[in-house]
Amino acid sequence: MRSIHVDTGVADALAAFEMPQRLGFGVLMAPVMYRCQYQDGRWWDAELMPYGPLQIDPAAKVLHYAQEIFEGLKAYRVDRDRAALFRPQMNWERMNLSARRLCMPDIPRDIFMQAVQTVTAYCEDFIPRNSGQSLYLRPFMFGTQPDLSVAAANSYSFLVIASPSEVYHSGSMRVLVERNDSRAAVGGTGAEKVGGNYAASLQSVQATLAKGFDQTLWLHPSDRRHIEELSGMNFFAVMEGELHTPALSGSILPGVTRDSLIQLARALDITVHERPMDIDDLLALIKSGTCTEAFACGTATIVSPISVLGDADGQVYELPDTPGPVARQLRQALLDIQEGRGSDRFDWMSPIPPECYP
Amino acid sequence: MRSIHVDTGVADALAAFEMPQRLGFGVLMAPVMYRCQYQDGRWWDAELMPYGPLQIDPAAKVLHYAQEIFEGLKAYRVDRDRAALFRPQMNWERMNLSARRLCMPDIPRDIFMQAVQTVTAYCEDFIPRNSGQSLYLRPFMFGTQPDLSVAAANSYSFLVIASPSEVYHSGSMRVLVERNDSRAAVGGTGAEKVGGNYAASLQSVQATLAKGFDQTLWLHPSDRRHIEELSGMNFFAVMEGELHTPALSGSILPGVTRDSLIQLARALDITVHERPMDIDDLLALIKSGTCTEAFACGTATIVSPISVLGDADGQVYELPDTPGPVARQLRQALLDIQEGRGSDRFDWMSPIPPECYP
Ligand SMILES: Cc1ncc(COP(=O)(O)O)c(C=O)c1O
Ligand SMILES: Cc1ncc(COP(=O)(O)O)c(C=O)c1O
Repeated sequence: MRSIHVDTGVADALAAFEMPQRLGFGVLMAPVMYRCQYQDGRWWDAELMPYGPLQIDPAAKVLHYAQEIFEGLKAYRVDRDRAALFRPQMNWERMNLSARRLCMPDIPRDIFMQAVQTVTAYCEDFIPRNSGQSLYLRPFMFGTQPDLSVAAANSYSFLVIASPSEVYHSGSMRVLVERNDSRAAVGGTGAEKVGGNYAASLQSVQATLAKGFDQTLWLHPSDRRHIEELSGMNFFAVMEGELHTPALSGSILPGVTRDSLIQLARALDITVHERPMDIDDLLALIKSGTCTEAFACGTATIVSPISVLGDADGQVYELPDTPGPVARQLRQALLDIQEGRGSDRFDWMSPIPPECYP
Repeated sequence: MRSIHVDTGVADALAAFEMPQRLGFGVLMAPVMYRCQYQDGRWWDAELMPYGPLQIDPAAKVLHYAQEIFEGLKAYRVDRDRAALFRPQMNWERMNLSARRLCMPDIPRDIFMQAVQTVTAYCEDFIPRNSGQSLYLRPFMFGTQPDLSVAAANSYSFLVIASPSEVYHSGSMRVLVERNDSRAAVGGTGAEKVGGNYAASLQSVQATLAKGFDQTLWLHPSDRRHIEELSGMNFFAVMEGELHTPALSGSILPGVTRDSLIQLARALDITVHERPMDIDDLLALIKSGTCTEAFACGTATIVSPISVLGDADGQVYELPDTPGPVARQLRQALLDIQEGRGSDRFDWMSPIPPECYP
């Protein structure tokens, strides 16, 4: 393993940390963080530090041109002796796709794995052990070079912070179809986990909440007809017992949960269709009773049933089965693996190597 | 005027600052910066501080969801006793359009003006006095709330930093038509000065340079046919002595320089067409000799003639007049106003109020 410098303040930070009664999602930050910096064409020594403010030059590229990418994955300890990560390899690979899209250096596998494993190991005592809870890990990287020209930076910080969390959304969701705004263009950054996609989505997220819905459903930015995804989740619908999800269009994030559910469904003999899904067709199929279930999925939320799809014209389309049998079955199968109850038949769980512990 | 706290280090920072021989663009940072913070629903006291690193929480929204906007404007001192800003009101208005698009609070006019005026006043001695040089001012604002949910922040920093600069691009430019990537979607953030647009453009900027060109020419993200703009400049072409520029499509930045050139051209009896401009038509018109000039404009570059348009298929289209008579005439008319030689007939120059000086 790469050497890592453990800051002298880490032990005190760990000792001083107290777990509150209520966790929420992504609000409570774990007491340590990992940082590795890239400069002069190479990665320098990694540090584990107490969680705390970063020093950033006011002209750093990240603050002006949003040269920033991130990932999200979880460490589980429910029904486990020691913590385990869910499919970290997928997040590492996707993070490097994001990095390339924004002209950032690749993150070596050993740095990424050291980062998520070490933060998890040091925080093991703070990983909640009730079903649905976990340690949410947030790897991120941004350009630090202070220079106002529109060009890629020559220096970067890669960090991992973590948050002991509940699921992002519990219960069922009311979802509003977005007919005007887009989160990313064709030829843009929609297939990558890039800060700008989320900035572009905020206006719709806010309007959606104001209208009494929980989440925006995004359509294809050019044809304005095909379903893409939600702001932080992929979309599924169930018709006659079969699963339908938008094909990866190039502007959709290829979700790790989406991929996992597709594999699980097939293993459970549920037919899965990855295909372009026209929103008007879907709404008609809900109305006619052919589409009985819809749900969203993602690392933060796992599987969240959708109770209602609302359209911009004020029409609402209720899904009769909420939570429906397919969503429930898939959610349970996935959680059973993540939470150590089911057999890890796909080899998805990644234990923390002993040398990562303090 | 709003009260402003001048940090005790400012005098020393100013005294220690040395102007180098070569300036470049946006590389040399002026020794002071302005900051005003927004929290609990209101703006707090402003500070003028020595230029230096900011403290940012690792979970701040800006580092993950790119909730960040910026502006660019210039203070001129060529042929002037005291510094003057070019159309700062336009930048203030546009910055608030950007703020609204990203669900950020409006910046009050007095804060914006105090910021750009005070930084200019304190840096007056560092505003270069050769034609084409100026003090480039960079107002920017970002979300600081530490919270990983995809939602607008409840706290913000607004800053102004500055850079004594040359023009961004001198001489003529070779411009490459981008047929694949997009910088912003229809329904996205292309009409606003939002970090994510620039992150999305980096890949094309880099590929363009690698192919021996200077700038990317962006097309409409959905129709892939109509010309939008360059990565930091608007686009103009001259046909039979008349000026043509893409109409504001909703995904183009409404440039202050673009607006100024349109006004200047009309005052000089040059006919101006703001209209959708098809790239293939334009290339054909260059080939046939009808289109004789093309140029780009923006705060950083002022007016930059385009010598060549290259297409993705390898074809190159040379503009016979580089720099052409219309570009030269407009550039001179604009610089004469900015640099205090011509009469300020449109009332564009904004002097710094005496109370802003140290
Ligand atoms: C836009 C978007 N879509 C989908 C997802 C779901 O992906 P994953 O299952 O990898 O978490 C996420 C986030 O995680 C996301 O940000
Ligand atoms: C994308 C883009 N287009 C055009 C411009 C030109 O606008 P202005 O003339 O206001 O500087 C800029 C920058 O300034 C820009 O970033």
